[in-house]
Amino acid sequence: QIDSARLWGTIHETAKFGATPKGGVRRLTLGPEDKQVRDWFHKACEAAGLEVHVDALGSMFGLRKGRDMSKAPIGLGSHLDTQPTGGKYDGVLGTLAALEVVRTLNDAGIETETPICICNWTNEEGSRFAPAMMASAAYVGDFTTDDILSRKDAEGITVAQALDSIGYRGATAVGTQKFSGFVELHIEQGPILEAENKTIGVVDSGQGVLWYDGKITGFESHAGSTPMPLRRDALATLSEIVLAMENIAKKHGPKAVGTIGEAVIANPSRNVIPGEIAFTVDCRSADDAIMDALDRDLRAAIAEIAARRKVEVQFDLIWRKPPTHFDPKLVDAVENAAKMLGYSHRRITSGAGHDACNLNTVMPAAMVFVPCKDGISHNELEDATQADCAAGANVLMHTVLALAGV
Amino acid sequence: QIDSARLWGTIHETAKFGATPKGGVRRLTLGPEDKQVRDWFHKACEAAGLEVHVDALGSMFGLRKGRDMSKAPIGLGSHLDTQPTGGKYDGVLGTLAALEVVRTLNDAGIETETPICICNWTNEEGSRFAPAMMASAAYVGDFTTDDILSRKDAEGITVAQALDSIGYRGATAVGTQKFSGFVELHIEQGPILEAENKTIGVVDSGQGVLWYDGKITGFESHAGSTPMPLRRDALATLSEIVLAMENIAKKHGPKAVGTIGEAVIANPSRNVIPGEIAFTVDCRSADDAIMDALDRDLRAAIAEIAARRKVEVQFDLIWRKPPTHFDPKLVDAVENAAKMLGYSHRRITSGAGHDACNLNTVMPAAMVFVPCKDGISHNELEDATQADCAAGANVLMHTVLALAGV
Ligand SMILES: NC(=O)NCCC(=O)O
Ligand SMILES: NC(=O)NCCC(=O)O
Repeated sequence: QIDSARLWGTIHETAKFGATPKGGVRRLTLGPEDKQVRDWFHKACEAAGLEVHVDALGSMFGLRKGRDMSKAPIGLGSHLDTQPTGGKYDGVLGTLAALEVVRTLNDAGIETETPICICNWTNEEGSRFAPAMMASAAYVGDFTTDDILSRKDAEGITVAQALDSIGYRGATAVGTQKFSGFVELHIEQGPILEAENKTIGVVDSGQGVLWYDGKITGFESHAGSTPMPLRRDALATLSEIVLAMENIAKKHGPKAVGTIGEAVIANPSRNVIPGEIAFTVDCRSADDAIMDALDRDLRAAIAEIAARRKVEVQFDLIWRKPPTHFDPKLVDAVENAAKMLGYSHRRITSGAGHDACNLNTVMPAAMVFVPCKDGISHNELEDATQADCAAGANVLMHTVLALAGV
Repeated sequence: QIDSARLWGTIHETAKFGATPKGGVRRLTLGPEDKQVRDWFHKACEAAGLEVHVDALGSMFGLRKGRDMSKAPIGLGSHLDTQPTGGKYDGVLGTLAALEVVRTLNDAGIETETPICICNWTNEEGSRFAPAMMASAAYVGDFTTDDILSRKDAEGITVAQALDSIGYRGATAVGTQKFSGFVELHIEQGPILEAENKTIGVVDSGQGVLWYDGKITGFESHAGSTPMPLRRDALATLSEIVLAMENIAKKHGPKAVGTIGEAVIANPSRNVIPGEIAFTVDCRSADDAIMDALDRDLRAAIAEIAARRKVEVQFDLIWRKPPTHFDPKLVDAVENAAKMLGYSHRRITSGAGHDACNLNTVMPAAMVFVPCKDGISHNELEDATQADCAAGANVLMHTVLALAGV
């Protein structure tokens, strides 16, 4: 059994790095608060006897030796970055639970056959730089390191510049650290476990993701003197797109969701009809055919709206992450650990994307979910209980022990 | 007859202060480019022998003596500030034509009975600070000077700070400069004169304006894991409001318009459902009863949308400017000048607001319109011909001469 109070203590200790007045955390990837939590994590890993290295995209790896060093380690961990108005648990729980597993094994003097390696992946959130799960995507070869290094945030700062500015452009090439499997603990970020009163979610699949960049070009003109029929209003166009996307997602529901999270009017003014708007779209489904349908329906709706309103809409798919089907053996291992520990559990699909979803494409991977209050995440009010966090960390530890061998 | 080439020259000379790559002007009120054009105008007024003073809100007045100095002068002019993506003529034509009238009278050695006073009113556009026609509204007593001095732009800079930063907080109290009447030349900013091939619009009325500040509070949550039916999406709410407002304006059309020019998502992120949006609304009609109906319909629509989507919408009227009915005698004077000069003309309602609309509430006022290309304004592509600008300046001069007496 891990030390529940110690785990809970580290979660609340690190929550001060980027703490917001409403009880959440704002710790954008590779910003000053991310540097603070990284420095804290680096020290904690070294204090736990781990050999730490950082890769060229800033992902952090803490290696605990096993008896058989010829074997690639079992990886565990998650991420320490957050959304602009994020919570204290998303990513943090999985990373600090991995540290807690090491501390527990150290205290108990347990040596594993296969080494284990705890991880903090760079830019899982995808909020400052696209795509989400950026570093693990590069790790599995979906993008080259150079491509990722050149991605820019809204201020035009590249990933390379951001890494350098906090001193986390590491020495090892992306992909150097090998794993024989990966297990990630995370809060569910959805309402199912809580509603069904289950402690553990045995994650067997994950939704695919479509990310788009859009730009509407209408025509700026005077709010007072331009008759309604002559307008080419970019915001009215966006409004139709938002509602069309909502209807399309509902039509394919409950197996699909769609969100427009960003929309910025160029040179806004109260008495000017908006002429240009940049926006982003996030659509998801666990079903490949539905993902295709979402893409098709959305493009058709946008084309119709643009033609009718005589505006131009540029609409580019910038990321497609197929649905995830986690490794059946590792999923069973998670389930067995939950059973063995006597926790109530159910199989579950992840609504969110995770680094484990990327890693699963090149190694066996699986995930453990614990409930979060009202299913709320990506919100400062995100909450989870100490008991559930500890239960998840125990399932994580026993899954890893089963895989690594004692 | 005014000097058409000289007028055209000053329009293009001053267009360099804030010139944009697309041929427009970005000269936000009380910013550095506004200081440049103000300094230019100040010098030009002095070179033309005018006595210049600046009031506590930065409005500039250049007085040309008349034979009877016991009479309050006839005012003429407009504004030199522009929209963020504004054109070269909106406001500028009226202000520089006023200067051209003085230069022409000087050259011809014409003395008027009543003095005349050319004006550059501060913040006509209302883009950086609300409301529009801010300084003339304070002049007529719709707002106190202190209230206006405390208004803030999007960066939190007050009018007082902005005035001080460019050295244009003048010595004379707002309202000190008296007028016995006011005439403003402006481009139409709408499509009617061009469509009907008329050179001069004799403006007899102007639309009323309703400005609102709105804020939607929904609930931020995860774009991937939050089921569609559980969402309280601030952007989807705004989208319904935008389309409802468009329909309401169309329903009351062609005698009404409605625009949402600004909408800002708080803490936007691709994979977060927007939880908070601030927006502005601009609704207009020349008919008081329709203005009431717009307000009523809009509030009802917003209440229904907010209740159905379980979000909170704050919606505050921050400015109501009633429709304008210009002084019949001055309107006749404009029409007579157009007739006398042989220009084709028609009576017209102004779609935009103007300082003359404010001034008309405390003195006889009227306006002269000239066509602009395709009716386009509040756009960098705004355009007008040299001949039309000169025609408007001639009508302005002869109206002023008729009122001031030679
Ligand atoms: N777990 C999580 O919130 N990841 C962020 C990436 C995404 O799913 O949008
Ligand atoms: N003339 C003009 O464009 N004024 C700006 C104020 C407004 O009507 O919105």
